[in-house]
Amino acid sequence: MTYQSPQEFSAATVACKANLYFDGQVVSHSLTLVNGEKKTLGVVFPGLYRFETNAAEKMEIIAGQCKVKVADQDGWIGFEAGTWFDVPAKSYFEIEVMDGSVEYVCSYIA
Amino acid sequence: MTYQSPQEFSAATVACKANLYFDGQVVSHSLTLVNGEKKTLGVVFPGLYRFETNAAEKMEIIAGQCKVKVADQDGWIGFEAGTWFDVPAKSYFEIEVMDGSVEYVCSYIA
Repeated sequence: MTYQSPQEFSAATVACKANLYFDGQVVSHSLTLVNGEKKTLGVVFPGLYRFETNAAEKMEIIAGQCKVKVADQDGWIGFEAGTWFDVPAKSYFEIEVMDGSVEYVCSYIA
Repeated sequence: MTYQSPQEFSAATVACKANLYFDGQVVSHSLTLVNGEKKTLGVVFPGLYRFETNAAEKMEIIAGQCKVKVADQDGWIGFEAGTWFDVPAKSYFEIEVMDGSVEYVCSYIA
């Protein structure tokens, strides 16, 4: 079965207050599913950003294009809508958006 | 009972794809509650924007400060976190954010 980006989540508890990073260049809303899974739905505007991780994360790109470098991987890898990458726990990743915006679903792996 | 801004919504269906307006200066995520009520959770960055309405809307400001003029009201009125305004159906409102960002919960009145 080919991979499909998530379209929606049902039976979720959604926090009204957004998460704003880098002066609003990255915006997300947090939600918790019935099974306790935590996710954020986010938008990244042009720029280069570094995010630290506590739990491991699965980042699914659902719109736009970006380049990503996970921790001390050698090179930058391009991602677009319909692709995803994993980031280990207690690590970090860098993401660069050249133009427009990128949207993602981030799943926190317990 | 004094008015309290909404903090979270439970048992909601949340669309992953964000709504982006004015080149990303206004970002929102849409959700539908179990009773069919439709809402958006939004962030407004500095600027002056006009939004048309189909259904009537209740706009609850949950963070930041802004000025608002609803349709052909005479003056601009200041709103901050913990306040709200109504917009009639088939109408419009203008919202201005001077600095930082403003966050809102928009409820569409069926």
